Amino acid sequence: MAQQHLEPTDPVSRHVGPVTGDALAGYLRAQATEFLRALRLHRESGGTTAAGAGPGAEDPVDAARALRRSLRRVSASLHTFRPLLDPDWSESLRPELAWLSGTLGMEHAYESRLERLLLALHRLSGAVFPAQHIAGTAPDPQHSGSPTHPAAPDRGNLTVGAAKAGALLDRQLTLARTRAHSTALQALGSSRFHAVADCIAVLASEVPLVQSAPATDLRPLATAAEERLADAVTALPLVTAGHPYNAEALIHGLSPDPAPHPQDTPWHQVRLLLRLHRYAREVLQGTGAPVDVRLFDAGRALDRHRDASEAAAAAAQAARTPRIAPATAYALGVLHADQRHEVEAARFTFQQSWQKHPVST
Amino acid sequence: MAQQHLEPTDPVSRHVGPVTGDALAGYLRAQATEFLRALRLHRESGGTTAAGAGPGAEDPVDAARALRRSLRRVSASLHTFRPLLDPDWSESLRPELAWLSGTLGMEHAYESRLERLLLALHRLSGAVFPAQHIAGTAPDPQHSGSPTHPAAPDRGNLTVGAAKAGALLDRQLTLARTRAHSTALQALGSSRFHAVADCIAVLASEVPLVQSAPATDLRPLATAAEERLADAVTALPLVTAGHPYNAEALIHGLSPDPAPHPQDTPWHQVRLLLRLHRYAREVLQGTGAPVDVRLFDAGRALDRHRDASEAAAAAAQAARTPRIAPATAYALGVLHADQRHEVEAARFTFQQSWQKHPVST
Repeated sequence: MAQQHLEPTDPVSRHVGPVTGDALAGYLRAQATEFLRALRLHRESGGTTAAGAGPGAEDPVDAARALRRSLRRVSASLHTFRPLLDPDWSESLRPELAWLSGTLGMEHAYESRLERLLLALHRLSGAVFPAQHIAGTAPDPQHSGSPTHPAAPDRGNLTVGAAKAGALLDRQLTLARTRAHSTALQALGSSRFHAVADCIAVLASEVPLVQSAPATDLRPLATAAEERLADAVTALPLVTAGHPYNAEALIHGLSPDPAPHPQDTPWHQVRLLLRLHRYAREVLQGTGAPVDVRLFDAGRALDRHRDASEAAAAAAQAARTPRIAPATAYALGVLHADQRHEVEAARFTFQQSWQKHPVST
Repeated sequence: MAQQHLEPTDPVSRHVGPVTGDALAGYLRAQATEFLRALRLHRESGGTTAAGAGPGAEDPVDAARALRRSLRRVSASLHTFRPLLDPDWSESLRPELAWLSGTLGMEHAYESRLERLLLALHRLSGAVFPAQHIAGTAPDPQHSGSPTHPAAPDRGNLTVGAAKAGALLDRQLTLARTRAHSTALQALGSSRFHAVADCIAVLASEVPLVQSAPATDLRPLATAAEERLADAVTALPLVTAGHPYNAEALIHGLSPDPAPHPQDTPWHQVRLLLRLHRYAREVLQGTGAPVDVRLFDAGRALDRHRDASEAAAAAAQAARTPRIAPATAYALGVLHADQRHEVEAARFTFQQSWQKHPVST
């Protein structure tokens, strides 16, 4: 997804022959430049997600996304190609990038989590959205009958419990999102941020490589990143994941623990390792190189895994709100289970796409 | 499942050459005899599911099962091979068999529904039963940590909401089961039942065939039953069902309609048609013939579909109980969704087993 937004004129595109520290420097300069461009756009738009932004203009949401995207790539490259970079510089910058990336990502995370949960509530209520139709499914005659039940809703309307659950989630996640927005704005005005931005501004022209870097081959480091990914994937319960409807993801679905799913952690870890591998490939092959379909599909499945996992937790959390109606709690229970099945479905999809194109280590 | 309980000494076993009304008469006599035997056992045991029945003895549960099994086969044969049987006799007997079959089946249905729901609640609470382990799954470190949550349960214990939901379901379904038991006992003492039993007693020695029956080939009628099955299967949304995690079965999971799943009906219908086809095969091939794995697997999947569908409805129904705690309602919501996913999983399994061995019509 990110690829198409990157400069196709990247200097290392379609690089042939040995790939050395120069390619890394070029990649980091390009990402730093992209960060500065996105930061300028973000400042010009005032940093608020105002509805007034023109349809053609790059709005603050896009600018914030571009900021995060370049941050992730710089951060990943500092990690994967650490031996080629000035250690003091990279070790001091990395936690700052992680802080900034995390801070800037929260608003979007809450927003998309709410959207995912409200969409699911609509789907669960039988209010089908066109995009959710699956080929081969006959139209459902659900609301054509049932004369004994006067409260039967029209298509597109939520049922009482679902509507209340949706309103509760809306309140809670909108509040969290608003707070995240303020935190992000505060962060962007802080001296801590200005130090990071200055550091990246320097990076846009001058990458602090170690002396041996221009003659060092990047490929062993990229291969090591790929191997870390392959090892982590091997440790996943892929046999279970490849068995549809294995009912694993909902085990502990009724646990009183607010974070009852340690089983998700290795999958989240693979998601991060896959990203590191993907960015390392970008450094080697240039950002203009064709997207690897396997990595793209697998990464999307793991994004969905993470999103569904967090959405399920949010539904469970909302169900702990004091004094909610039983109908609301029931709807949140159905929603929680639905999202945990999304988690399981995402694991299945990952397993399928990974199986289809075996990784070469 | 039923096959292995039938007499392997059935007179039409391994019949070769044309199969005529004589085979039907033999089959009906055998089933009627089996019914009378089961009825005698049921009466001797007092008809109550007493815990005092010895482990080797055929207990009243087995006797009731044998009663239902023979009833289903007689009823199915009257339907499939109608043209060979005295029309007045068979048309008057069929509704009586349906009544008796339905009445005798309710107690068992409530019992197994409760068992299914309580097992699911345990699974959802992370109380793993040995039989539910899936190969390739690593042991779950769920309850090793979480020191911030003092209420974290031991494995094997239910959480508060799950325990309350289980108690509520236990009360409701045990009450329903007790009522069904009384109704069945009343039915077995009624003059209506005695009329059916007399009719079946006559059938055990004298099958009222039409005059042409001994010379009539049964196979066209059996083929017609198979074609009705094949047509009904063709009308199922098998493409969707074969796409794992299609999220179809939980659409309308939050509908206020107490029976919100008309999408289940064609599957239930196929289950009945598959049974008719299976019993017609028994008539033709003899009950000692080898079990068709495809039919067996497909039938089991549809049984599971029906059971999960009804269990999901029971969970939704229980959630409508006034004045339940939100935690109870939440657990019932999770449980409902879990059982609806079982419904979806059963459709997937049916699609897979059907695909594997294409039906010849």
